[in-house]
Amino acid sequence: MNDRVQQFAEYRQKMNERILATDNRVIKRMFSLDSLTYAEGGALEVKQKELLGLVASLVLRCDDCVSYHIGKAVEVGASRDEIVETMSIGLVVGGTIVIPHMRRAMEFLDEMTAEQG
Amino acid sequence: MNDRVQQFAEYRQKMNERILATDNRVIKRMFSLDSLTYAEGGALEVKQKELLGLVASLVLRCDDCVSYHIGKAVEVGASRDEIVETMSIGLVVGGTIVIPHMRRAMEFLDEMTAEQG
Amino acid sequence: MNDRVQQFAEYRQKMNERILATDNRVIKRMFSLDSLTYAEGGALEVKQKELLGLVASLVLRCDDCVSYHIGKAVEVGASRDEIVETMSIGLVVGGTIVIPHMRRAMEFLDEMTAEQG
Amino acid sequence: MNDRVQQFAEYRQKMNERILATDNRVIKRMFSLDSLTYAEGGALEVKQKELLGLVASLVLRCDDCVSYHIGKAVEVGASRDEIVETMSIGLVVGGTIVIPHMRRAMEFLDEMTAEQG
Amino acid sequence: MNDRVQQFAEYRQKMNERILATDNRVIKRMFSLDSLTYAEGGALEVKQKELLGLVASLVLRCDDCVSYHIGKAVEVGASRDEIVETMSIGLVVGGTIVIPHMRRAMEFLDEMTAEQG
Amino acid sequence: MNDRVQQFAEYRQKMNERILATDNRVIKRMFSLDSLTYAEGGALEVKQKELLGLVASLVLRCDDCVSYHIGKAVEVGASRDEIVETMSIGLVVGGTIVIPHMRRAMEFLDEMTAEQG
Repeated sequence: MNDRVQQFAEYRQKMNERILATDNRVIKRMFSLDSLTYAEGGALEVKQKELLGLVASLVLRCDDCVSYHIGKAVEVGASRDEIVETMSIGLVVGGTIVIPHMRRAMEFLDEMTAEQG
Repeated sequence: MNDRVQQFAEYRQKMNERILATDNRVIKRMFSLDSLTYAEGGALEVKQKELLGLVASLVLRCDDCVSYHIGKAVEVGASRDEIVETMSIGLVVGGTIVIPHMRRAMEFLDEMTAEQG
Repeated sequence: MNDRVQQFAEYRQKMNERILATDNRVIKRMFSLDSLTYAEGGALEVKQKELLGLVASLVLRCDDCVSYHIGKAVEVGASRDEIVETMSIGLVVGGTIVIPHMRRAMEFLDEMTAEQG
Repeated sequence: MNDRVQQFAEYRQKMNERILATDNRVIKRMFSLDSLTYAEGGALEVKQKELLGLVASLVLRCDDCVSYHIGKAVEVGASRDEIVETMSIGLVVGGTIVIPHMRRAMEFLDEMTAEQG
Repeated sequence: MNDRVQQFAEYRQKMNERILATDNRVIKRMFSLDSLTYAEGGALEVKQKELLGLVASLVLRCDDCVSYHIGKAVEVGASRDEIVETMSIGLVVGGTIVIPHMRRAMEFLDEMTAEQG
Repeated sequence: MNDRVQQFAEYRQKMNERILATDNRVIKRMFSLDSLTYAEGGALEVKQKELLGLVASLVLRCDDCVSYHIGKAVEVGASRDEIVETMSIGLVVGGTIVIPHMRRAMEFLDEMTAEQG
């Protein structure tokens, strides 16, 4: 796996475990609700849900969330064009303030794709 | 047309005209870019784009933007379940702070649907 | 009950019922998690939790959320001074952009207090 | 004075008085710091400071703050074109999510100008 | 002192000195108001104020502010459980977008605690 | 050129090229609109526009956007005092949550100025 992609995945897992080890009920339920939100079932396909998560993360300008949803979107079969088009909507809704986050998102997407190529 | 839905549409049109009458190039281009963003063409369907615009508007907590995209989503054939599921993603990503906006969104959706029913 | 306080409570209840009637699992769990978050138990008292919810709502500038937590804080015994001091922290952290929300919060607090007086 | 402009000014004054009556030192200092920020003196003219306050308020999407700074900017001699151009920068930086706030800002500007005309 | 905790404290102090060296009255007053906000006195205990500052920082997703208030909260005697519970409220109010910030907050808390242990 | 300033400029250019290489019409237009926004012409001077871009970036807490506008402002002749005063307005409007971003902004400004000195 690409270095940055792997580093992100490892830190994410390590700290999620630390957080869940606190044994706080509210936090645990929020984490499991997070999984449920993007799970199969309901009116929308998983791919669509991941793209919705991506655009929401982009306009809220959370780099890690953006990376996470790009990773998942690629995994469940979203094309590069679908991901870029999703980001273009985030750019227009969220304004030029989104651009620096889009740079890092594009770098992550390039690394994900290189890995898969 | 339902009162609230109609009022919203009329105010929106009246003030957009006032804004465009300023003859400011930057503003005009931003408005036409806004239309282009959700137009047919590209990798995603119009319905998908409207749902992406909806979730972005919901997490940014802009009631008028949410109403607008609900209106468009219904127009281009999104089902009530697809709209509600899109909003559920916005709720989890954006947190309980989104709830009051979801109440107003649901009221608008009910009015749109009543109109169409 | 004071008009504005009552109106807020009624609209809130009516639309929450509409939202829960959608029978969307993600939304339902988020609503029940919201209740759990401020429930008795754990390391903090309910009053402290309500004040934490209040300051979070104020810096995120959600008027309805602020009203809701002021209402609850008063109910569980927070004094006017504790509520105002909580808001003063939100004002400094969030900046002068918070002031218009503080005006509406103060009006709501006045109405809540008048009612109880 | 125009109804909406006057109503805004009256509510603002009434509630500011209520807030300052709480006798909370932190709040009082924040209010006086707010005045100092836009006062004469320093490297920038008052008009420039008001336009900076306006664009900051617009991208943070605070309608009352936007109205307030439009009012002050007009008072200290900003032209309609300067105000509109300032708003165009806020629109591009903040994205289309800013548009509904721009509609209300334009309505307020029209009312301010009508009053002065 | 732990490396990350120390590095943060040193950079913070160095740059605060640079900022205050500008001799800008508005900035200086804002910095001293910041100190006053969390000082002893008033209706709330210092520990409660630090937890309010923490939750406000978390929902606004400012990592440095979160680290700072965790540090202060630990210093003035907040327990690990109180800090985690405070963060759980921020997570529910602010949504899953808060999770990456919670990971870094937890890492900082672990480092603070290791140091003290 | 100073290391941090140069690194920022190089990454920015490299990734902007990657983004524009996607050949997405919406993104391309947003990028060219960004340039148009701060170009000469209209009611405000370029320097004023850059300061407006700076304060908008600061209250939205985008470090890269802040660095970019500081760089441009220095280039088009803004004095250190004008830049600091602009930041002081952002600090008061946006609150203490802005402080960590101001530290990094001041570091960037110091590096820009050292380079020019």
